[in-house]
Amino acid sequence: MKAKVYVTPKKSIADPQGNAIGRALNKIGYDKVEDVRIGKLIEIELGQITKEEAEVQLKEMCEKLLANTVIEQYSFEIE
Amino acid sequence: MKAKVYVTPKKSIADPQGNAIGRALNKIGYDKVEDVRIGKLIEIELGQITKEEAEVQLKEMCEKLLANTVIEQYSFEIE
Repeated sequence: MKAKVYVTPKKSIADPQGNAIGRALNKIGYDKVEDVRIGKLIEIELGQITKEEAEVQLKEMCEKLLANTVIEQYSFEIE
Repeated sequence: MKAKVYVTPKKSIADPQGNAIGRALNKIGYDKVEDVRIGKLIEIELGQITKEEAEVQLKEMCEKLLANTVIEQYSFEIE
């Protein structure tokens, strides 16, 4: 079973890395770019496990290790 | 218009960051985790632009700046 976890900075948190990429894109001609935010995409390959178990475990993994929930939000999808 | 760009290491490229997170997850009890790969999720807010233009521009942005196509692959979706 494959899962994709998305970890992004919360809206209220400044994202200097995203801002830098946004400015760089503007500079090389992409003037329609208004805002850029950078997050992580974590692809996890899970062994024999039910979808229900996977959901519970992924939530725990995000809370414990994958996301810093003070400044980041997460979501995931299971394929 | 909002776009999400996903940049991940190519399958043939080692991903030590992903391996470290995989081992850490195994260590704290998630023994079903078999493989982890880490990529970037780039959320781009685009101004007034058609979907067709956005597609062309996003492909260019990925090739020029967002992805290192020697070692990374990319995909994107426009909302």
